[in-house]
Amino acid sequence: MEISEIQAELEQYIQYYYQQNFNNRPQSLYEPLQYIMLQKGKRIRPLLCILAFNLYRDDISSAFGAANAIELFHNFSLVHDDVMDDAFLRRGKPSVFAKYGLNNSILSGDVMLVYCYQLLAPYLVNKPAILQVFTKTAIEVCEGQQFDMDFEETENVGIDDYLQMIKLKTSVLLGASLKIGGILGNANNKDLENLYNFGINIGLAFQLMDDWLDAFASPEMFGKAVGGDIINNKKTFLHLKSMELANDSQKDKISQITQMPKDNKKVNAMLEIYKELGVEEENKKLMRKYHLAALENLKAINVDEKKKHNLTIIAETLLKRIK
Amino acid sequence: MEISEIQAELEQYIQYYYQQNFNNRPQSLYEPLQYIMLQKGKRIRPLLCILAFNLYRDDISSAFGAANAIELFHNFSLVHDDVMDDAFLRRGKPSVFAKYGLNNSILSGDVMLVYCYQLLAPYLVNKPAILQVFTKTAIEVCEGQQFDMDFEETENVGIDDYLQMIKLKTSVLLGASLKIGGILGNANNKDLENLYNFGINIGLAFQLMDDWLDAFASPEMFGKAVGGDIINNKKTFLHLKSMELANDSQKDKISQITQMPKDNKKVNAMLEIYKELGVEEENKKLMRKYHLAALENLKAINVDEKKKHNLTIIAETLLKRIK
Repeated sequence: MEISEIQAELEQYIQYYYQQNFNNRPQSLYEPLQYIMLQKGKRIRPLLCILAFNLYRDDISSAFGAANAIELFHNFSLVHDDVMDDAFLRRGKPSVFAKYGLNNSILSGDVMLVYCYQLLAPYLVNKPAILQVFTKTAIEVCEGQQFDMDFEETENVGIDDYLQMIKLKTSVLLGASLKIGGILGNANNKDLENLYNFGINIGLAFQLMDDWLDAFASPEMFGKAVGGDIINNKKTFLHLKSMELANDSQKDKISQITQMPKDNKKVNAMLEIYKELGVEEENKKLMRKYHLAALENLKAINVDEKKKHNLTIIAETLLKRIK
Repeated sequence: MEISEIQAELEQYIQYYYQQNFNNRPQSLYEPLQYIMLQKGKRIRPLLCILAFNLYRDDISSAFGAANAIELFHNFSLVHDDVMDDAFLRRGKPSVFAKYGLNNSILSGDVMLVYCYQLLAPYLVNKPAILQVFTKTAIEVCEGQQFDMDFEETENVGIDDYLQMIKLKTSVLLGASLKIGGILGNANNKDLENLYNFGINIGLAFQLMDDWLDAFASPEMFGKAVGGDIINNKKTFLHLKSMELANDSQKDKISQITQMPKDNKKVNAMLEIYKELGVEEENKKLMRKYHLAALENLKAINVDEKKKHNLTIIAETLLKRIK
């Protein structure tokens, strides 16, 4: 099956599921859940789950419930993150927090998290391992969000700390999506490990690409305003690598820039430093490293090469914006 | 075994578990969890779980992990409820919200909820039914909290709505604690139903007792200031029953009282109405009804009467404050 067909079937299932269910009381609890789940997002995680499953089996709809649990978990994390980050926009629309307020965001998020387990339950009879993968991942995602918040107030964040944080906050759920698809498809342990690591590496490459785009892309290329990370003093790879490579006078300069008013002059001043230190190339190099590692993981999976076509396309699509 | 011995063993297990675990990073995520779990609360729910298990089996420590999951879930709900209710005190100490702030309360609560499933996982291989009971209950507790919040802004709350709300918010978790203990003890389905309903009825009786105490107890008897529900216009059974029985002029009077300044005069004026309408007796009557129903449930459980001694004591202890 082509990716677009799989996506269409998956979207149809998700739309149907959230339209048919959650129409019971209390409406104030379930309306936010329907609001966010019925938005047509990219559905990357459930798609990865289904594509991994599809390496081994063709009856993809039998894995839709598990894929849905993963998408629901991802959206639970967005609902609570938007409260914690005070974020009023999500996918260009009002966030659940903006639309339904603090209390409903907390409680709807909670019930979403519980429903993930409801969706997984039917799979656990034959595949109890899924519970462990899912729960471990959910814990790690919470840890990643906590590290991200902590880093805002930490002076000396190392590059390894940063990579560990984005791994927990973003990559592990991609890895788990693929691994759960593989478990449902009866993949062997070696394949499961490669599927998981494929997701981890894609996730790291994707986040590094996002850091790069935020600093160097044209607004048309990026789809939103460029320079936001610099303006908000976000401790991205570019920033942390600059601090690592800078001499004392460059460090002073960086420190001065972080205190400049939030405008284009600040962005340009920081880009100048990034150029001096060559961190753009370092960022791309590391991104390429993870991208190549992901392709190696994919190559090592023990199924017919033709079957891997869709996952190869996904990897390219996610990372196509820079080379 | 005597209740006090069981309680001591259980407490020791819980203290050990939360002291040994959760010492890893990020500390800001796990410190609030340890803070609340290491407080010596009443541990009613895990105790009920173990007492139900103990009807059938003596190796009580084999059920401690599941009992712990229930206690962790209860505390998760307290952490998030205290955010939603803006509550700074819990068990006479600063709440997690007061001590660690909004974001850490949300995220620590989330990870607590996930860890409940981690704790239940080892039991699911042999007893998959536990997942369904736990998850259904967790959903209902969220619904109960939402109804409670909604009722604050609802004009016409009926008595049935109120009883349904306290059932969801409080009783179902007591019922589930007992049922999970029973499942682990290999109880038959009829016993499981009676255990569950014992918890439901105890919970309803307990909440009605709490409503009564808040209005009529002496401060020494209640352990805190009396009249809080009246001062805050809480839609308790007493209030709702009064609205049901009141004639038009009494309704006007109640409405005037709800707008009085928050002091003793307000409390006394409302108590006068309660007296006129005889709702104190109605409250006690309903409480007794649930208490008796609970004892009937206990009686119907198919184990030696002597074994039921501890659960009988618990029912009496929970409800002893008024007769």
